[in-house]
Amino acid sequence: MKKILFALVFLFLTAFDGEAVERRYGTSALMVVVERESGAVVVIDSVEHELLGRVEGLGDLRHATLVFSRDARFAFTIARDGTLSKIDLLTLTLERQAKAGDNSIGIAISRDNKYLMVCNYSPGGAVVFDARDLRKVKEIPAIYKEGAAPSRTVGPLDTPENLMIFGLMEGDSVWVVDMKAEGFPVVKKFESAGETPYDQLITPDGRYYLVGFEKSDWMGLVDTWRLDRVRKIDVSERNAADEGAAPIHHIPHLESWAISGRYAFVPAFGRRRVLVYDTEDWSLKKSIPISGTGLFVVARPGGREVWVDNTGAPGSAEERTIEVIDTETLSVKDRIDAGKGAIDPQFTAKGESAYVSVREEDRVVVYDTDTKKVIREFKVRRPSGIFSSYRAGQFGL
Amino acid sequence: MKKILFALVFLFLTAFDGEAVERRYGTSALMVVVERESGAVVVIDSVEHELLGRVEGLGDLRHATLVFSRDARFAFTIARDGTLSKIDLLTLTLERQAKAGDNSIGIAISRDNKYLMVCNYSPGGAVVFDARDLRKVKEIPAIYKEGAAPSRTVGPLDTPENLMIFGLMEGDSVWVVDMKAEGFPVVKKFESAGETPYDQLITPDGRYYLVGFEKSDWMGLVDTWRLDRVRKIDVSERNAADEGAAPIHHIPHLESWAISGRYAFVPAFGRRRVLVYDTEDWSLKKSIPISGTGLFVVARPGGREVWVDNTGAPGSAEERTIEVIDTETLSVKDRIDAGKGAIDPQFTAKGESAYVSVREEDRVVVYDTDTKKVIREFKVRRPSGIFSSYRAGQFGL
Repeated sequence: MKKILFALVFLFLTAFDGEAVERRYGTSALMVVVERESGAVVVIDSVEHELLGRVEGLGDLRHATLVFSRDARFAFTIARDGTLSKIDLLTLTLERQAKAGDNSIGIAISRDNKYLMVCNYSPGGAVVFDARDLRKVKEIPAIYKEGAAPSRTVGPLDTPENLMIFGLMEGDSVWVVDMKAEGFPVVKKFESAGETPYDQLITPDGRYYLVGFEKSDWMGLVDTWRLDRVRKIDVSERNAADEGAAPIHHIPHLESWAISGRYAFVPAFGRRRVLVYDTEDWSLKKSIPISGTGLFVVARPGGREVWVDNTGAPGSAEERTIEVIDTETLSVKDRIDAGKGAIDPQFTAKGESAYVSVREEDRVVVYDTDTKKVIREFKVRRPSGIFSSYRAGQFGL
Repeated sequence: MKKILFALVFLFLTAFDGEAVERRYGTSALMVVVERESGAVVVIDSVEHELLGRVEGLGDLRHATLVFSRDARFAFTIARDGTLSKIDLLTLTLERQAKAGDNSIGIAISRDNKYLMVCNYSPGGAVVFDARDLRKVKEIPAIYKEGAAPSRTVGPLDTPENLMIFGLMEGDSVWVVDMKAEGFPVVKKFESAGETPYDQLITPDGRYYLVGFEKSDWMGLVDTWRLDRVRKIDVSERNAADEGAAPIHHIPHLESWAISGRYAFVPAFGRRRVLVYDTEDWSLKKSIPISGTGLFVVARPGGREVWVDNTGAPGSAEERTIEVIDTETLSVKDRIDAGKGAIDPQFTAKGESAYVSVREEDRVVVYDTDTKKVIREFKVRRPSGIFSSYRAGQFGL
């Protein structure tokens, strides 16, 4: 009976406004694209490559990031102005909002899907929210020494042990919070980890935490199973590797450093290079020249290719270029001219397609990754980050 | 306007039959449990641990398996009697059925979400279906030599290159089909790979294909990037490792052999052991005694633990036991008494919960994996395989 009524209603609605009936879809293969200047996200089905809808009113989305609820029904965005939003990806509506800070930089969801943590530049520190109703449940001020103001924080990232890890920019530290314990205690503080942590990642297996520093010639590596020390990974080669400094148009994103097999692919900070480290001993295996400075370095699922977008001067050739690195030969095997300001290649879960934001041309393009040909395009206003809902089940994303 | 009308309709429907309104949910965190003797599956939301519904009429589900569409809206089951079913996980209804054979054993979905391949014991060979309408589009008879009857096949598995790989039981071969090429050609035949292939896996990164043989003392390893040869991995230790043969109550499932870090955990065929191989050179690292013969060996996400169910004589202690192996010490650190005929631990994507079928007690239990305590139970008739919808984005699952 209920089904018949639904059918009647659908018919009625169709007749009523001339639109198609509400489309049903699974949520495992959505692409959520951030429109950085209009405070909106666009939601696309990456199986059929169909636009599903757009949700507005999310605040200042420059450098915005987002995470998914485990069932990928909801996306949580954190705007640069501190607006935390819960978006329903099925109804394509804004479900709820809260204020997380005055200047926020990162967000993560706890392993158990219950809590969100936001890292703030202002007022500094980190804040924990209930993922259900966005109620603030804890403030962690990140005061790293007596009398100091709260440090700006970067991160956070979630781990398989239900920890959250973040860096303290002024504190030169890495802190670890237990999201399962009453009151969300800071269970570990790594002091003097390195000068000015600026970005971080968790290896795909969830075990190792890597943090990059703006002013230290090393990366920090923490074994999250032990939490015993920050091992220093020498990255001084990043400064010696090539032809001299390149202007930094955007800070490279550590979150999407790529790991393929035993190698990690890392954009050199301020150099036109991708550095390849052997994760067995974190020795530098190779330095690969690219046309600009890499922003996102992303492994195609299956691990055979790594795609790198490039930043460069506005209007330059390099800011149009995506370089495809062969992970066996460790050299560039393809160059894609993707358009003005092409950034953030995001693969579908099995890698047959890649979504790319072409910021200065107001479009998102979809590539067949085998042929490197464009198979679909969407009009999107000033697109930036693209987030695959497959991340709902991945650590640190 | 449309939204108001929907709201009114929901209210009306609620008033009309006294039931709650239709529940909306994302599809990224579903657990689909096979009821092996009633031809049905039960669908559970593994975030809230709530039963969503049950779909019947799926044929003979002994040894049934299933795969998901990429968006996890649909599940495709292949029944032992050859019934291929497409289940809508949002409406919880049977969408469509087809006949794949008289005795079918496995199913996979192509990387591009467009085609299904089914392996048959009878009439042998493999069959390709359009995933949209279950129309049969190709038969691959698996005739391995002139005059021979079609071989029984096992598999198939999908790879990042959009290949399908399956084994020929009578043919002692491994065949590779290109799912992207017109007509689904067999692009490679590995002959004399080993005697009677019986099960197979793809490593989580999608690169290596592993096949087990009933009558050969090796496993076959194929590098799917090269497709140049079947490397023989010595498993003769599986027969020499311990106290003598144990009765085989069920054939161990290769599909869920576990890989954690650089180690592969493999149930010894007909021995009360889990064998640990170093995947760098496939040498035997350790042989771990367990109480019965292992059926499913599954890595908890994060890789710190491997859970092993045990088969044993009906009513025995071992068929109640799940052993938890510490992947650092390579020894059993916990034994869970999970109930009579406990099988197939299936973790949520981030590993905080594990679902276990307790076949002889008609229930599915959910464990908190940190405490190893039961947090939820469901009445399910003779449950067997449990399939997490997170598999929608994983190779070979």
